[in-house]
Amino acid sequence: MTRSAGGADVAVVGGGPIGMSIAWRCSQRGLRTVLYDPAPGSGASSVAAGMLAPVAESNFGETTLTRLLVDSAARWPGFAAELTAVTGHDIGYRTEGTLVVTLTADDRREAERLWAYQQSLDLPITLLRATALRDREPALSPRARGGALMPDDHQVDPRRLVAALDTALDRAGVTVVPQPVTDLSTLDARVVVVAAGCGSAALTGLPVRPVKGQILRLRAPGGAVGFQHVIRGYADGRHVYLVPRADGEVVVGATVEERGDATVTAGAVLELLRAAADLLPEIAEYELAQAQAAARPGTPDNAPLLGWHRIAADDPADDPTGGRQVLVATGHHRHGIVLTPSTAELIADLAGGAEPDSGLAGFRPDRFTAPTAPTTGEGKPWN
Amino acid sequence: MTRSAGGADVAVVGGGPIGMSIAWRCSQRGLRTVLYDPAPGSGASSVAAGMLAPVAESNFGETTLTRLLVDSAARWPGFAAELTAVTGHDIGYRTEGTLVVTLTADDRREAERLWAYQQSLDLPITLLRATALRDREPALSPRARGGALMPDDHQVDPRRLVAALDTALDRAGVTVVPQPVTDLSTLDARVVVVAAGCGSAALTGLPVRPVKGQILRLRAPGGAVGFQHVIRGYADGRHVYLVPRADGEVVVGATVEERGDATVTAGAVLELLRAAADLLPEIAEYELAQAQAAARPGTPDNAPLLGWHRIAADDPADDPTGGRQVLVATGHHRHGIVLTPSTAELIADLAGGAEPDSGLAGFRPDRFTAPTAPTTGEGKPWN
Repeated sequence: MTRSAGGADVAVVGGGPIGMSIAWRCSQRGLRTVLYDPAPGSGASSVAAGMLAPVAESNFGETTLTRLLVDSAARWPGFAAELTAVTGHDIGYRTEGTLVVTLTADDRREAERLWAYQQSLDLPITLLRATALRDREPALSPRARGGALMPDDHQVDPRRLVAALDTALDRAGVTVVPQPVTDLSTLDARVVVVAAGCGSAALTGLPVRPVKGQILRLRAPGGAVGFQHVIRGYADGRHVYLVPRADGEVVVGATVEERGDATVTAGAVLELLRAAADLLPEIAEYELAQAQAAARPGTPDNAPLLGWHRIAADDPADDPTGGRQVLVATGHHRHGIVLTPSTAELIADLAGGAEPDSGLAGFRPDRFTAPTAPTTGEGKPWN
Repeated sequence: MTRSAGGADVAVVGGGPIGMSIAWRCSQRGLRTVLYDPAPGSGASSVAAGMLAPVAESNFGETTLTRLLVDSAARWPGFAAELTAVTGHDIGYRTEGTLVVTLTADDRREAERLWAYQQSLDLPITLLRATALRDREPALSPRARGGALMPDDHQVDPRRLVAALDTALDRAGVTVVPQPVTDLSTLDARVVVVAAGCGSAALTGLPVRPVKGQILRLRAPGGAVGFQHVIRGYADGRHVYLVPRADGEVVVGATVEERGDATVTAGAVLELLRAAADLLPEIAEYELAQAQAAARPGTPDNAPLLGWHRIAADDPADDPTGGRQVLVATGHHRHGIVLTPSTAELIADLAGGAEPDSGLAGFRPDRFTAPTAPTTGEGKPWN
């Protein structure tokens, strides 16, 4: 492969877990890698709960995405072990699994439809009666009507993940440039990777929109959280999750709002606390330590954009990349943390010159604009 | 009167609105005054809503306290005008009045009992049907069943009040010593005034206990609060108030908890937001800007301690004041802001040598320990 004179092999734009992991993997493959972000880890990941939930997040009509979620979740144990071994960081990877809990008859019927679908895909899921639920988590409300255990739906602490990746990049010799990038044509690198979350839209013209999420951070008295599983609840028609950390923190989330501001609203906090306290009454005694809002990067089908960016501009002057070879890794919506290992491997493979993996076919960045049978005659690689 | 050599006439311990106002009034009477507080305005007042509510806060069996509340509220217009004239500060004094609102039939019955009592005292109160309530405040929930207008129950912004008092003290030549006081016998002053809130217990031995309150600060979108009155609600058995400020802030409060910590809890935030949104649904769209907790100084009968402190110690060595002449102005519980003008006048009068006002008889600091017919033969003045 050729390098631009004085430049890097790969310039990664965006220092969330996705961009950092791509940079790490690229560097491990021998590619000279630079990462640009004025504040790594300050975007959507700073508000992510870190659920690794391929099963609980498998929804009707999203089988392609589900395959990617399952694939990436399966890579998580190895990814976590490697990252911890390299950096010495504890990233809060926990494998107690996820309990889905319903409160009302309507909640149960809604959940049962999805469980049947998830079972039809042979995903690991065990239905539990109310008594079995409470045997596993005695702190659950007496109103719990039934639920399901998803033993392979784990969790990690995204802020610890970012700290570990920061150390890993340093050890791997990746240069982190604390500057924003507003124009890809200014970057001196053979391949540019856009992993800039919601900022990817302005850099590429791709349809990435902000999807606001609000979360709460609670702290258990004495640091002792009264439950071990990730709890995902259907509570009187409201959906909520509670993610217990070993250090006494519980993350409660999350709203899904079609707007991009970062304002914490009274209504969102009310709905999250109401649903959470309906599921686990003891959290009323917990400290409300923080409430946060941030924007996830969403796409028209809410699946990520992964692969080579085919420039749609007829006139090269309209090409925002200035003729760069551009890889895109964004639009992960609610799935950025779970999809981090797979995204990093697949994008680093492409940056290193590999042919696109067949699993990427459904996530092509141009899928909303390209002709049904894309050609490859434009001098740029395709996936 | 005599001054101790090199000392002040009056040393005020505690720089909340009470202590600051006492110091201001003492200085205006020609008394050389020093105020001690490491962080003026950082105690209970920093979390106070600033309701001046002699009527709404008039409860069964508290007629003596009600008289003091009514007297002090009547002094507020003059106090506010004087403070603003002297300092140029806008202290957020607003006179739109208070609307009490009930949601359920039970709420209304509970409120009606209290309204009947308040009417029996000839307090200014006008009962309103639901339609009249909503004519005054169209943002009220359609569930509002009826309520009452208390036109003389006003509001002030306690943080602005503290800032204005700080300027007033500076202009009046009061020395503010930014140090904590832990031993009254170290103070070189003819009269010591203890206005130290919850800290007064350790300084005097008097029965002052912390009563925790939690409040929320919301911000209206665009700074435009959709209601003008202070709203006090009975919402499905929960009591809540919402205090609208001209700058777009709304204070929602408050819990009353028999504990002294400053932890904001999930349960308190949930209950405050639920009740507030039940009364005024639009607040769901407001920003939740801050949640705070602090301790109010409570007494066994929840009325303040105002007057000369009679030392109960048989052995002078056990006297925590070291033989100082000590005035007490603490234990204001939920009423510190409304009682500020009267407290300042009455205590400054005593510090200046006046005989105790008859209105102080019910608030003597020793009322929980003194014999029924106190003597005055102990070398200390009495109220």
